[in-house]
Amino acid sequence: MQKVSLVGVTGYTGIELFRLLQSHPSIQINQLFSRNHAGEDIADIYPQLSGVYSQQLVEFSPEAVAPEEIVFTALPHGISQEIVAELRQQGNRVIDLSGDFRYRDQKVYEEWYQREHNYPELLQEAVYGLPELKRKQIKQAKLVANPGCYPTASLLGLYPLLEEGLLQPETVIIDAKSGVSGAGKSLKRVTHFVEADENVGAYSPTGHRHTSEIEGLMAEYTGGFTGIAFTPHLIPIKRGILATIYTKISGSIGGKALIGLYRQFYDDEPFVHLLTGDNLPQTHSVMGTNRCQLSLALDQRSGRLKIMSAIDNLGKGAAGQAVQNLNLMAGFDEELGLTETGIFP
Amino acid sequence: MQKVSLVGVTGYTGIELFRLLQSHPSIQINQLFSRNHAGEDIADIYPQLSGVYSQQLVEFSPEAVAPEEIVFTALPHGISQEIVAELRQQGNRVIDLSGDFRYRDQKVYEEWYQREHNYPELLQEAVYGLPELKRKQIKQAKLVANPGCYPTASLLGLYPLLEEGLLQPETVIIDAKSGVSGAGKSLKRVTHFVEADENVGAYSPTGHRHTSEIEGLMAEYTGGFTGIAFTPHLIPIKRGILATIYTKISGSIGGKALIGLYRQFYDDEPFVHLLTGDNLPQTHSVMGTNRCQLSLALDQRSGRLKIMSAIDNLGKGAAGQAVQNLNLMAGFDEELGLTETGIFP
Amino acid sequence: MQKVSLVGVTGYTGIELFRLLQSHPSIQINQLFSRNHAGEDIADIYPQLSGVYSQQLVEFSPEAVAPEEIVFTALPHGISQEIVAELRQQGNRVIDLSGDFRYRDQKVYEEWYQREHNYPELLQEAVYGLPELKRKQIKQAKLVANPGCYPTASLLGLYPLLEEGLLQPETVIIDAKSGVSGAGKSLKRVTHFVEADENVGAYSPTGHRHTSEIEGLMAEYTGGFTGIAFTPHLIPIKRGILATIYTKISGSIGGKALIGLYRQFYDDEPFVHLLTGDNLPQTHSVMGTNRCQLSLALDQRSGRLKIMSAIDNLGKGAAGQAVQNLNLMAGFDEELGLTETGIFP
Amino acid sequence: MQKVSLVGVTGYTGIELFRLLQSHPSIQINQLFSRNHAGEDIADIYPQLSGVYSQQLVEFSPEAVAPEEIVFTALPHGISQEIVAELRQQGNRVIDLSGDFRYRDQKVYEEWYQREHNYPELLQEAVYGLPELKRKQIKQAKLVANPGCYPTASLLGLYPLLEEGLLQPETVIIDAKSGVSGAGKSLKRVTHFVEADENVGAYSPTGHRHTSEIEGLMAEYTGGFTGIAFTPHLIPIKRGILATIYTKISGSIGGKALIGLYRQFYDDEPFVHLLTGDNLPQTHSVMGTNRCQLSLALDQRSGRLKIMSAIDNLGKGAAGQAVQNLNLMAGFDEELGLTETGIFP
Repeated sequence: MQKVSLVGVTGYTGIELFRLLQSHPSIQINQLFSRNHAGEDIADIYPQLSGVYSQQLVEFSPEAVAPEEIVFTALPHGISQEIVAELRQQGNRVIDLSGDFRYRDQKVYEEWYQREHNYPELLQEAVYGLPELKRKQIKQAKLVANPGCYPTASLLGLYPLLEEGLLQPETVIIDAKSGVSGAGKSLKRVTHFVEADENVGAYSPTGHRHTSEIEGLMAEYTGGFTGIAFTPHLIPIKRGILATIYTKISGSIGGKALIGLYRQFYDDEPFVHLLTGDNLPQTHSVMGTNRCQLSLALDQRSGRLKIMSAIDNLGKGAAGQAVQNLNLMAGFDEELGLTETGIFP
Repeated sequence: MQKVSLVGVTGYTGIELFRLLQSHPSIQINQLFSRNHAGEDIADIYPQLSGVYSQQLVEFSPEAVAPEEIVFTALPHGISQEIVAELRQQGNRVIDLSGDFRYRDQKVYEEWYQREHNYPELLQEAVYGLPELKRKQIKQAKLVANPGCYPTASLLGLYPLLEEGLLQPETVIIDAKSGVSGAGKSLKRVTHFVEADENVGAYSPTGHRHTSEIEGLMAEYTGGFTGIAFTPHLIPIKRGILATIYTKISGSIGGKALIGLYRQFYDDEPFVHLLTGDNLPQTHSVMGTNRCQLSLALDQRSGRLKIMSAIDNLGKGAAGQAVQNLNLMAGFDEELGLTETGIFP
Repeated sequence: MQKVSLVGVTGYTGIELFRLLQSHPSIQINQLFSRNHAGEDIADIYPQLSGVYSQQLVEFSPEAVAPEEIVFTALPHGISQEIVAELRQQGNRVIDLSGDFRYRDQKVYEEWYQREHNYPELLQEAVYGLPELKRKQIKQAKLVANPGCYPTASLLGLYPLLEEGLLQPETVIIDAKSGVSGAGKSLKRVTHFVEADENVGAYSPTGHRHTSEIEGLMAEYTGGFTGIAFTPHLIPIKRGILATIYTKISGSIGGKALIGLYRQFYDDEPFVHLLTGDNLPQTHSVMGTNRCQLSLALDQRSGRLKIMSAIDNLGKGAAGQAVQNLNLMAGFDEELGLTETGIFP
Repeated sequence: MQKVSLVGVTGYTGIELFRLLQSHPSIQINQLFSRNHAGEDIADIYPQLSGVYSQQLVEFSPEAVAPEEIVFTALPHGISQEIVAELRQQGNRVIDLSGDFRYRDQKVYEEWYQREHNYPELLQEAVYGLPELKRKQIKQAKLVANPGCYPTASLLGLYPLLEEGLLQPETVIIDAKSGVSGAGKSLKRVTHFVEADENVGAYSPTGHRHTSEIEGLMAEYTGGFTGIAFTPHLIPIKRGILATIYTKISGSIGGKALIGLYRQFYDDEPFVHLLTGDNLPQTHSVMGTNRCQLSLALDQRSGRLKIMSAIDNLGKGAAGQAVQNLNLMAGFDEELGLTETGIFP
């Protein structure tokens, strides 16, 4: 049994993490930390737990965490780095779900997040927690920076092309559609039911932070900066991301060869599924899971490859992936506690 | 390990049943029968299974079922009784999810379903599969008639009053709100997205079949027929039923005593949860689960007790309850494979 | 041309009122008052007006209103009575959309709204603005109290029975389902998209203020207080209310006679439509309109009459009805500017 | 008064057309033709008309149409060309909402629609009914081919660049998101509520017919064929299209100059609105209207211009635009009957 604690359990990512960990066969939950709801029972805040699970939420203190614990931090960026630093200082391994440790280059972080980073040494220690790209490093990691939801969907779609050097990075356009839980639990006009329902629109059309996160990872393969076009959209669903990716590819590789390439990369991956028949990725097919569905369409007219990638933003895009990272760090079977299939209908 | 087969796996109830059984630790799935999709792989019809599970669907034949199997039949009424009869004849225990075996009185069935019942002897053999009311009988049952979704939500709300003789049955009004999956997978105008979305309306305001199913069970406690007012409504959600029940109660019992009474009945029940604080039953709190949330409000102005009861129509209202019944029939822990909490957000 | 001003134009009721008045052929809009957005252009707050309509919002001052104007106040209760008093003092006729003037009995108001009423004399002057019940008085009114959304749907359903003395008032149960815009524009957890979407639940099961508003009007016909059972529910749609009303009726009047009675009351009403065939009231059939759809079902089993009543909570339930009242007060054709049919699909 | 008839009034486009025409001040409706519902009253099919409008639907016959009428045909392609040919033969002017007359090049039509075109001479006569591009020709037209919904949103976004020769056509990528009414009224699995709700996915990723319609119009400006990348997506909303367009532009023109250019083209257009502040196009801002909202974002990183374009697929994308075309053909003010602003909330 691996003991874990959660810091920031009452946000949407936090409660999904709790759901997965609570039913995980080899996990024992120690502390549930919450700043806003310290003293309350988790079942009062999330009534789906009423009669099923009861635990008092407490204010975070590093002393309440045992040395052998792996700690999940699901906090706003900025706040997260302080808590993570405390935990790392006393030796705990940490999986951080904020944006605070997803960059190697401190300057890029500071530019996009408009704040200083107080722990540059932890930036170097941190491993980007996308297991399909970084499995080996994650197994050894002390600090895992759990990826953003958009970068997860995007990078899983691009990875085989990146690794094989087939991507023309300057042609990459990512048009992403996200469910509203991706905007978090805090109340905003744009996520008020009456404003979000029966509506679709783009937001942050030129400056979304995940642009830089995707670019940072791409640069590891393409050997330098390349500006991509990334546009997020808000869709009236609770959970799910669909990324539609457009790119030109180098060389003259046909549709079948591309599918063969993706098969090679993903057939042994437990959570990435390439659809090759009539079915295309749909967010409802991965709802509640740690899975990613991909499909490819080579568009002869425009000379573009279209890659469609669907995940659950709270699953593979956040909490599910965090548990996958924990499985790797704890030496468990990577699929443990994550075998759910999509809840449909 | 208990071996099971499923007849009618591609409907919404069938696929939810499959989802639960596939992750059940003591179940081994033998056959997946489907009339419409025989020869196809289940993952082609339900792409959430793509890359995760593969099994060919086959046309039903009783010989393909081993004697020790418990078989789930998730078929339209009328068709179901024929298949069930074949299975019973060769000795299999059956859990039937249609309306065909939910009545003791053949005439009531024939009146409400507008067709003859060809197996009156099986009507007598069948046990109504609502474990909170019939646990003992279910354990011994050869044939379980899994209850309808509306009756499940309604009867769990009324049961303590029925058992204690506190109900004034002629005052019972059940106003029920159902998600669209309750209307099934077949394409209809009323469940076309454009017609169902952003809309709410009643349907079958005086003749819904579940009226008679609820009345039949009530009569076991009240000693005779009583006509209730039952009105179903279609709500633009995928899953979930909320039943708002209004009734007068006999005698002068106060709000606290009523809560005490319900606690007595349900505190030891693993799947029925009485909410007593500020939180009221919400369908999203039980989404994806076999749980029922209840709460009581004694309305002094009108002298009515209001009982609110929320279930997932595909969970406790169908597939979840069927698995609970199987656990009882197989001698398993009743909660096995059903410990999920609501998927929220 | 009738000159009007609007106080509180940026709430959901205010903007719907603006939409109707702007396209009304005999209305000239003078001032648009807003406390929160004074100094801004209405098109910046409601971008559907971008490029179509531009007017600066200003802080309310009674002097900016001309004597001949009819003024709409769409404000929170409590605040509203102060503004209305100022306007009445300088002689303006007012249509108030808050709850502040819907009661004759000051004590009932003060009990249900938990605040003092500072203008009891205006309570006596006010006319309850439900034209189908109070047309004559509205034509002469100086101050119209525009009804609540739930009371409008409920009272239109009950009115013929009330007027004819056929209602057994102590048996009335109103189970109402409302779209989320009814909860207003201010941000709340329960109306956050992620919480409201894919969910249905009751709220305020014993103490919703509209209970007392409905009872107050009923008492005018039944000659005294009668407690009704009223339960509101939140449904994931933007606009619309469906009230399902259950009651026993006095005497032995059959289904056809009841329909005849309702026809007598409503066939000449321009905005109340009795459905008598297979179609039942649906909120999408009245979306964007000032219309109410009714239908009746006499349930022999339970001896109850079920009345289904659908309105748009922002239309007949608020802004549409306010314009209908204005038409009566200004001596216009009652249908002027309100001839829209439901926006479906 | 201009007399009109409608052929195919019971589809979603047909009924929206009816809604607009019925409230149009200078239109008199003669016949409502329907094949599937001949003999029924329109109010029985669309209960929003119950008590408001009554007219019997009749089987189409050209003789029932008077010579001076302009006829709207809202029919499936293939069927439409036959009806249009009959109407043109007896001299009626026609506005056709199918895809049958949107191409100059018969071969392109036949390739993309996989059927022969029986009236090539009418293809030459037809004018593409996008008023912002073809106003003069529409005024003189005998046959107007009302554009597709996706092409309308896309071409309004691209038009100033096309006209000024600033577009690099081979770089155009159009990622479009459509509400479900765009898929029509016929029942399909993909538009069943339970399948469409809480889901987003692409469809026809390389072969949607509107691709060729957009390319055809683009070619008029770019002087030849250019393959674009067009991907439609289905979004769980009833009405609305958002097209997110990515393109490189020729020359070194900055963001402000681009906005100036678009202002020049659209400031005098009554139905195209350029948003330049914080507000971006949202489908709910144009719901129920004939309006298009545009905004531009110059993305320095990727060297792409992003153009966001929102319309109501049944409004400016179909029925609204058809009425705008009628206004031009009948010599009316172009805005007559189309002054509605978006229904929000």
